[in-house]
Amino acid sequence: MPQDLKTMADAIRVLAMDAVEQANSGHPGMPMGMADVATVLWTKFLKYDATKPDWADRDRFVLSAGHGSMLIYALLHLTGVKGVSMDELKAFRQFGSKTPGHPEFGHTPGVETTTGPLGQGIATSVGMAIAERRLAARFGEDLVDHRTWVIASDGDLMEGVSHEAIHLAGRLKLNRLTVLWDDNNITIDGPLSLSETGDQLARFKAAGWAVKAIDGHDIGQIRRALTWATRQDKPSLIACRTKIGKGSKNMEGHHDTHGKALGKAEVAATRDNLGWPHEQFVVPDEVYRPWRAAGRRGGKLRRAWEQRLAASPARADFERAMKGELPEHAFEALDALIEKAVADKPAAATRQHSGSALDALFGAIPELLGGSADLTGSNNTFVKNTAFFDAPDYAGRYINYGIREHGMAAAMNGMALHGGVIPYGGTFLVFTDYSRPAIRLAALMGVRVIHVGTHDSIGLGEDGPTHQPIEHLAALRAMPNLYVFRPADLVETAECWKAALRLQRSPSVLALSRQKTAPVRTEVIGENLSAHGAYQLKAATGPARVTIFASGTEVPIALAAREKLEAEGIGTRVVSTPCWELFEEQTDRYKAAVIGETEVKVAVEAAARFGWDRFIGPDGVFVGMTGFGASAPFERLYKEFEITAEAVVSAVKAKLED
Amino acid sequence: MPQDLKTMADAIRVLAMDAVEQANSGHPGMPMGMADVATVLWTKFLKYDATKPDWADRDRFVLSAGHGSMLIYALLHLTGVKGVSMDELKAFRQFGSKTPGHPEFGHTPGVETTTGPLGQGIATSVGMAIAERRLAARFGEDLVDHRTWVIASDGDLMEGVSHEAIHLAGRLKLNRLTVLWDDNNITIDGPLSLSETGDQLARFKAAGWAVKAIDGHDIGQIRRALTWATRQDKPSLIACRTKIGKGSKNMEGHHDTHGKALGKAEVAATRDNLGWPHEQFVVPDEVYRPWRAAGRRGGKLRRAWEQRLAASPARADFERAMKGELPEHAFEALDALIEKAVADKPAAATRQHSGSALDALFGAIPELLGGSADLTGSNNTFVKNTAFFDAPDYAGRYINYGIREHGMAAAMNGMALHGGVIPYGGTFLVFTDYSRPAIRLAALMGVRVIHVGTHDSIGLGEDGPTHQPIEHLAALRAMPNLYVFRPADLVETAECWKAALRLQRSPSVLALSRQKTAPVRTEVIGENLSAHGAYQLKAATGPARVTIFASGTEVPIALAAREKLEAEGIGTRVVSTPCWELFEEQTDRYKAAVIGETEVKVAVEAAARFGWDRFIGPDGVFVGMTGFGASAPFERLYKEFEITAEAVVSAVKAKLED
Repeated sequence: MPQDLKTMADAIRVLAMDAVEQANSGHPGMPMGMADVATVLWTKFLKYDATKPDWADRDRFVLSAGHGSMLIYALLHLTGVKGVSMDELKAFRQFGSKTPGHPEFGHTPGVETTTGPLGQGIATSVGMAIAERRLAARFGEDLVDHRTWVIASDGDLMEGVSHEAIHLAGRLKLNRLTVLWDDNNITIDGPLSLSETGDQLARFKAAGWAVKAIDGHDIGQIRRALTWATRQDKPSLIACRTKIGKGSKNMEGHHDTHGKALGKAEVAATRDNLGWPHEQFVVPDEVYRPWRAAGRRGGKLRRAWEQRLAASPARADFERAMKGELPEHAFEALDALIEKAVADKPAAATRQHSGSALDALFGAIPELLGGSADLTGSNNTFVKNTAFFDAPDYAGRYINYGIREHGMAAAMNGMALHGGVIPYGGTFLVFTDYSRPAIRLAALMGVRVIHVGTHDSIGLGEDGPTHQPIEHLAALRAMPNLYVFRPADLVETAECWKAALRLQRSPSVLALSRQKTAPVRTEVIGENLSAHGAYQLKAATGPARVTIFASGTEVPIALAAREKLEAEGIGTRVVSTPCWELFEEQTDRYKAAVIGETEVKVAVEAAARFGWDRFIGPDGVFVGMTGFGASAPFERLYKEFEITAEAVVSAVKAKLED
Repeated sequence: MPQDLKTMADAIRVLAMDAVEQANSGHPGMPMGMADVATVLWTKFLKYDATKPDWADRDRFVLSAGHGSMLIYALLHLTGVKGVSMDELKAFRQFGSKTPGHPEFGHTPGVETTTGPLGQGIATSVGMAIAERRLAARFGEDLVDHRTWVIASDGDLMEGVSHEAIHLAGRLKLNRLTVLWDDNNITIDGPLSLSETGDQLARFKAAGWAVKAIDGHDIGQIRRALTWATRQDKPSLIACRTKIGKGSKNMEGHHDTHGKALGKAEVAATRDNLGWPHEQFVVPDEVYRPWRAAGRRGGKLRRAWEQRLAASPARADFERAMKGELPEHAFEALDALIEKAVADKPAAATRQHSGSALDALFGAIPELLGGSADLTGSNNTFVKNTAFFDAPDYAGRYINYGIREHGMAAAMNGMALHGGVIPYGGTFLVFTDYSRPAIRLAALMGVRVIHVGTHDSIGLGEDGPTHQPIEHLAALRAMPNLYVFRPADLVETAECWKAALRLQRSPSVLALSRQKTAPVRTEVIGENLSAHGAYQLKAATGPARVTIFASGTEVPIALAAREKLEAEGIGTRVVSTPCWELFEEQTDRYKAAVIGETEVKVAVEAAARFGWDRFIGPDGVFVGMTGFGASAPFERLYKEFEITAEAVVSAVKAKLED
């Protein structure tokens, strides 16, 4: 190994070991094991400029094995990224530092995505590579021409989502994606063979990847392999055989280096072993120097790129897209659709309304990049005449994700993180369970990803309880920074799409019906009422004794119940609740007015009660589901489970007589 | 193809086509495509007796591609399983029928597991094959000696969970597991190549499986392949090249046969094409006859087995285990542990308490079969001196699942369904997101599976927000028939284990702390208070003005706040809420008494508020999390996020002054 690179790699090792020791918490083994690979990648291959870590045409680096966070913190520090000072390394895993336990997007400059939950990084990187190709097709390779590099662990490759990700990447021939697998034969519980005897190279090859195995401590092999990767016509996997905790005097190769501090004595012994005479957290100038030079390596390329951008006629569009801002007339066609809907009062499934909204949006917002997990016709996610996103030209805007809900969700995160595209993807709402870990990361990172979840209740009908969401609305509403929309008709569906697209720092789920439902917004209203989250749809004729809250397909039931109650002289108002999270953001006064103070509060939703007490209180009346659904035509199910106007009326009357 | 088998297979085709036509809903393509394979399997290989479909030593048949439910309904009907009459086939997908849209365990005799959400069946079958080997090791092959057969679709194999499942099965060399892949090159959206170009045979081989490809319409090839499968020393995959909708006159091989009725004209044309002259839902005696004979094929084997069982000294144990009943003295050691805990008042993390509870249970309940998704030391799931479950003898009772939370959860479902074992498995609570689809199926099927979810809040500390559950308690509590336990100390932890083990028809999640926590149950109490779900832990000294509800590690905070409030003369009671679901099952009177009617109601939980309004009302005070966590030592996090006794006290006082 050339002396300078070896010493540069040792700086990573020592910083990782020292920071974990200082925190008495963390994972030294992986950064020490992958230091050589990372050093070659970051000093010779990664297209990147530490003075501008958010340069749009940089290579993306994803540390899928996020527990090895000290690897990326050391790299960012050594290359000179502003904000990742030695003091931050000293504050590793402490409150408010830039160096949390796992890398967090938006928190530390240079961190491209939040990782830690295994498998997410590798699956997210597929989306980054997709976004890169889509933007290259849109803006040309003069402006978009970069790669995505991933460091992944055994755990990443055991997780199911990695399977979905690598088959999707293989299918799409994403040849600018390279995974460097830390092939160290160790997991937390001991030797890898305790739980895994599969052949990863054969597995990736079967998924359509180019594969290669190297000694991850041999600089020459690393260099040749990285060069090889850049020449493939498909995604590439490099198995880097390493020793976990490499450099540790007595613990190299042992699973005890994975997840805890080495201990004072071993840290000292390792310093000796590496021939690193410097104190804790001291990096000498002669080591900083080549690292800082490597960090500035991309400066020239970046400046040339900036000149090309400045001269490009697409500049304004490119910059706007990368900022995530919508085009000026993004909603013109959608607003016209709303106006028409108020006049025409169309009755259809809200998934069909969502399709209509997309028709109005897709042309106006070229960043929209759609897809479905093999339920295109059911999800109404496809806009007519759209080309599929595919090799070799990648100009299409619709992705055939296959039956890979989790991989789709993670890839969408990667697209949003990359920037320049706004991803949306469809599946049945019930299958948000499959993609939940990726949805959570989107919420945590604050990225705009739109999940289209159709067949949103027992209204799905014959497919039965396995496919009927019951607790999903509650489970999704419980998640911080996730916006769950359940619109009732075309007007609300269009309003919800608008609101979701305006949430630049949050993911959304649109819960949409399979079954046809009656329009509820039949008067002209200029304002986006759904953007208030909940609003009074219909006042009582006289003084209100009853408030009925409802969302989606249950709003017409609420309206019908109101008619009946009003006919009996019981003043009843109806509140539509398309998005609880937006409602919580309204003023206290608005919220109090919408909730009201009627004698009886009722909620109607073909789902679990869980969470509804926020609107109706523990003593409120809930008309909905108490257990799982059943297989039958939907009209029958609503009757059997007593989610009807009649049931609302009799529950209200029973309560009034209480 | 021998004439009789061809005709027998055609009976499946016609019944599938007819039932879907009648319902005008369903999936004819798959049953028609796989009819030949299923016919050979069920008439020549499957060890099974239609007169006793719950015979313990039967082969298990799993229709992972659950949308093709008419395949299994036709098989059950034709072989003569009681309860699956022609009338039931005519009522396909109708309310209350035995033939719901997807096969449901516990609903239709002969259905071994609920399938439909893709990937679940294949992953569940791995658990069945594990349970078979474990019981064979315990009771001998005289009593336990059967196979697990799976029919899987392209969708099953695209889902991530299939990856976890097949690598686990390959690692464990489960050679009694055979997957018959319906290799029909079609998905809902069109040709498979839209989304998949991987090589499944190579993939399974890389996972350690024996693989073979055949023509799925060639009876001879099917027979030879099934024979071959029974001779492998590893799990086996048979790729059955089929035509979807096989037999359909004009639509054979087309994705339109996947998910909808063929239509009257095509049904008629298909009858002609098959040479099937009989009316809708008519099967002639000469076709019933060989099917019924095949259904009774296993009778002799079953009777011989019953004789062996009757003569076996292990009979009582075997029957008890298969019924899912606990041994007589199951809780003796645990009760002693509780008594000792009341006296010794140990302070430790509840995950450690859970380890102590397991120590007391593991010897007493030989059905317990533990494991962890590579977090053994952290989850405290391993009982000292337990052997690993592994080839070749499979006598061990601890499974190294690897980093495969979803595969673990699905496998545990399979074990519980198989019967004779009680599975529990550990991971971090936050990663229940990964296994959620399998947890949901456990809840829907009503099987006893115990999920050990440690590191259950921001108390996890330095690993940061990716690993800190916030919304998970709410998301799990929202699920029907899932019991979520969050005990506070050793007494409650032991009580919760006891309650979870007694829930024979429900899965449980135990949410356990990483951090040390003080004992709260320090007086002798004979009754299992946690089994009431919530109970008054500490009364107010005088009249109560305040009720503080808390679970787990926040109970000591509630108690400390109570002390302070009482010291200021504010009467305060504390309610511990270890299991909301059990609480809801108590009498109204009990519930009202526990909730009480104090001026102020407070809940303290280091998690999201969502759902807590059921206890405290919309106007109640919540001391907990409002967003995601952060990376820091846990004491600091509790302070920063203001989940402290002081915060409770000042919130209560502010409310009292309102």
